[in-house]
Amino acid sequence: MTDLPKNQVLAELAVVLAKRKAASPETSYVASLHHKGLNKILEKVGEECTETIIAAKDAEHSGELNDVVNETADLWFHSLVMLSHLGGHPDQILAELARRFGLSGHDEKASRDTP
Amino acid sequence: MTDLPKNQVLAELAVVLAKRKAASPETSYVASLHHKGLNKILEKVGEECTETIIAAKDAEHSGELNDVVNETADLWFHSLVMLSHLGGHPDQILAELARRFGLSGHDEKASRDTP
Amino acid sequence: MTDLPKNQVLAELAVVLAKRKAASPETSYVASLHHKGLNKILEKVGEECTETIIAAKDAEHSGELNDVVNETADLWFHSLVMLSHLGGHPDQILAELARRFGLSGHDEKASRDTP
Amino acid sequence: MTDLPKNQVLAELAVVLAKRKAASPETSYVASLHHKGLNKILEKVGEECTETIIAAKDAEHSGELNDVVNETADLWFHSLVMLSHLGGHPDQILAELARRFGLSGHDEKASRDTP
Repeated sequence: MTDLPKNQVLAELAVVLAKRKAASPETSYVASLHHKGLNKILEKVGEECTETIIAAKDAEHSGELNDVVNETADLWFHSLVMLSHLGGHPDQILAELARRFGLSGHDEKASRDTP
Repeated sequence: MTDLPKNQVLAELAVVLAKRKAASPETSYVASLHHKGLNKILEKVGEECTETIIAAKDAEHSGELNDVVNETADLWFHSLVMLSHLGGHPDQILAELARRFGLSGHDEKASRDTP
Repeated sequence: MTDLPKNQVLAELAVVLAKRKAASPETSYVASLHHKGLNKILEKVGEECTETIIAAKDAEHSGELNDVVNETADLWFHSLVMLSHLGGHPDQILAELARRFGLSGHDEKASRDTP
Repeated sequence: MTDLPKNQVLAELAVVLAKRKAASPETSYVASLHHKGLNKILEKVGEECTETIIAAKDAEHSGELNDVVNETADLWFHSLVMLSHLGGHPDQILAELARRFGLSGHDEKASRDTP
């Protein structure tokens, strides 16, 4: 499974997430999150974001990226569970990222901040 | 650019992020973040996470996903800038997500919590 | 004003926050937050929490507490604006903290975690 | 203990926090946090902040403040454990809040943002 081409990972993950949404909360962690509801899922998103920030500060001193990579993967994973819970799909995030491509971030930020 | 296949988006974004890391802080938002340093980048990660959570709570009532998709894209984008600042690459996140594939989340969580 | 006895600070702050809630958004930062609404206030709460965490990690290495004290003050301040926006009062937080006094945290945590 | 005058709560809490810092991690929740270290304490600060934000969004719709008061008390409590872990005292937060008193927030913000 680790030989999966990188560019297939999110598409495969989307399939798994959709399948587990309908699984039993007793056997699937993802199903148990859906069962507990949006607030629980958002608590996990916030928790993983805090852990990502702490791991990044530790990486600043240690130069070791393992923890920050793991926590960022957790953050992305739980944000995809959140999106799935609300009826969305990872492709919507990728489409939004693609839409911003080629823009200078300064332009992008200015245009987003314009009312 | 919006016609870019979804599975190419992160690979393309990684190329853009690497290029902008070396750009002038005056013309590139990404370069200006790198110039301001890790703390500023982490503030943005935390900020976008809060905005994602607020947007998800609003989506719960409105059924409208645009804001939560946009904020999640912002969150992913800034977490990639963070990883780039520390010398990492989006493929590391995808590899970690792939590694966990096929595992039931319950098993995965149990194994991660084991010291 | 810095000679105000410490135990009067939150009571005085509550008076100021109530007064500024009705002030002009053009002249008062607090009034401008109320005018922008709950989401903007919560974004500030999340932002100050992230800055507190980053400052604490820096204090861990530098031993210098100024930044973490300032950021925690910002966090408390914006959480009081949030409570004021929702119609609450700082005394409610103090009453809740007092209620938990004398409890061992383990007991408290156990009792809170019980469904 | 709930009859404690509100303006004594933080002073009393500071005494309790100092005492529990030296207690056994087996019998005191606070001591167990100190034993686990700063990262664990900061994870709790971030977690309680996320729960505060979620509770505030729910209060926006329900008008019920109990949860948001409880979560804010948790947030303040864990930020005091953080400060205690780093060698600080609640009076430093109150002194900083007092220092800003009487300032219009706009002035305050402007002055803080000046490099």
